Amino acid sequence: MATLTTKAIELKNKIKNQSNIGLVPTMGNLHEGHLNLVRESLSQHPITVVTIFVNPTQFGKNEDLSSYPRTLDEDIEKLRQLDLKNSEIIVFSPKDEKEIYPSAPLINFSISSLENKLCDLNRPGHFNGVMQVIYRLFKLISPNSAYFGEKDYQQLMIIKTFSHELFPEIEIKAVPIKREASGLAMSSRNNYLNDDEKVDALILKNTLNSLKQNYFSSNESSVNLIKEQIDKTISKDDRWQYLDLLDADNLLAPSAKTTKLIIAGAYKINNVRLIDNTVFNI
Amino acid sequence: MATLTTKAIELKNKIKNQSNIGLVPTMGNLHEGHLNLVRESLSQHPITVVTIFVNPTQFGKNEDLSSYPRTLDEDIEKLRQLDLKNSEIIVFSPKDEKEIYPSAPLINFSISSLENKLCDLNRPGHFNGVMQVIYRLFKLISPNSAYFGEKDYQQLMIIKTFSHELFPEIEIKAVPIKREASGLAMSSRNNYLNDDEKVDALILKNTLNSLKQNYFSSNESSVNLIKEQIDKTISKDDRWQYLDLLDADNLLAPSAKTTKLIIAGAYKINNVRLIDNTVFNI
Repeated sequence: MATLTTKAIELKNKIKNQSNIGLVPTMGNLHEGHLNLVRESLSQHPITVVTIFVNPTQFGKNEDLSSYPRTLDEDIEKLRQLDLKNSEIIVFSPKDEKEIYPSAPLINFSISSLENKLCDLNRPGHFNGVMQVIYRLFKLISPNSAYFGEKDYQQLMIIKTFSHELFPEIEIKAVPIKREASGLAMSSRNNYLNDDEKVDALILKNTLNSLKQNYFSSNESSVNLIKEQIDKTISKDDRWQYLDLLDADNLLAPSAKTTKLIIAGAYKINNVRLIDNTVFNI
Repeated sequence: MATLTTKAIELKNKIKNQSNIGLVPTMGNLHEGHLNLVRESLSQHPITVVTIFVNPTQFGKNEDLSSYPRTLDEDIEKLRQLDLKNSEIIVFSPKDEKEIYPSAPLINFSISSLENKLCDLNRPGHFNGVMQVIYRLFKLISPNSAYFGEKDYQQLMIIKTFSHELFPEIEIKAVPIKREASGLAMSSRNNYLNDDEKVDALILKNTLNSLKQNYFSSNESSVNLIKEQIDKTISKDDRWQYLDLLDADNLLAPSAKTTKLIIAGAYKINNVRLIDNTVFNI
């Protein structure tokens, strides 16, 4: 069964005697990437809470809050078609923002070492909004684990740090990027793209892959080589919002201690901003 | 009984079956101001946890972290002399910072509407440090109420907002300023002052009182009058760190809606920074 709850108090009542809960926080418009998170949770917890809430505090003033796809009925249908085995899904999708934010949030969160790079450059305040909503969901649901995709890798790192410090009792589980047959990383924002744009969007993934291949096929100071190639790539195409090579363990510049790299990019097709990344051991 | 615990895990065990706990967070060097907070808590809860921890994250680089008075034995003795009636005090005073911060804090908290004024002007980062330690104490102890003095009024407002948003289940109780016979607001930092300096320090309290009296004795636009007097006062004596008149309900500039004012000041005697305030209905 996948049952729907719209009130925080009802959700609390439903889960109050549960001691093993998986949480999958989403903004809805579920695709295979989300469903994979849910499947992971179902395999590990008798109860999975899937939250569907388009969180206003993580959108910038000129971003797509109002047009963000809201498809609750289809989302629930997709969840109902999952193989639940002996586990249960509770969908929490508040109609009223006050169920999450009884008062407008005044407390801001920041993690300076993980900010001022990647998405934070284009979306100031975004990660504060993410932490504000995750705080409330963690507090409301007290899950044992919470599942996040690796597509938004910076978000994953921020939530890992956030949870480690503020909710050490909750385990953060990372789930690999799910891709369409073309290789395009799945995203609710892919719905904004027409077929031609979807082809254009492959530049993002293909560029990441080429850079990674070049890293491994070059002989010396690969990091510098890739950085030069990144600069060249960006300078030739202004649709890049960012493209960067960082230490995947801390999002700092790669150093002699680095064992895992990330190449991450954001690419804008008309008004649609897409992100993707590739992480690899060296 | 007032028993001492130095480990977080021991504290957790001691309070795990308690459902009615009062918390008095302190940095030690207890004076009558602190003891009043403890008395309040004792009158309302069977268990009072008094924490004694000189929190490094709320001190600036050039502040008095290393010289801050540490007097644990005397503190415990003072607590033991309180009239406990049927209640119990548990003192939690970690020897190792790791009991509070298992890892160095990376999450920063801010509340912009309550910052950039009063103490925050002189002590950037101070309130972030306060929120960092209060977060950990609230999470560790899960008290029903927590007690704070009104002397650090901005801290009180910040903690009320912080708790309202992040720990709505905890009630914040404000306790009036306790003063020495001279009128000087009690403070652990008064220990730094010699007798002459203690006389000088009365300038702080006396100025606040005069301004308040002038407010009530003037006929028209009292707020502007007091603001002019504040400017004059500060310009004549560079020991003022700040002196300000604000709406006591939100720390904004007084408006037509204001019903309660605060005049707050920080005054520096040699290297000792003292704060005080007066709050009054209009």
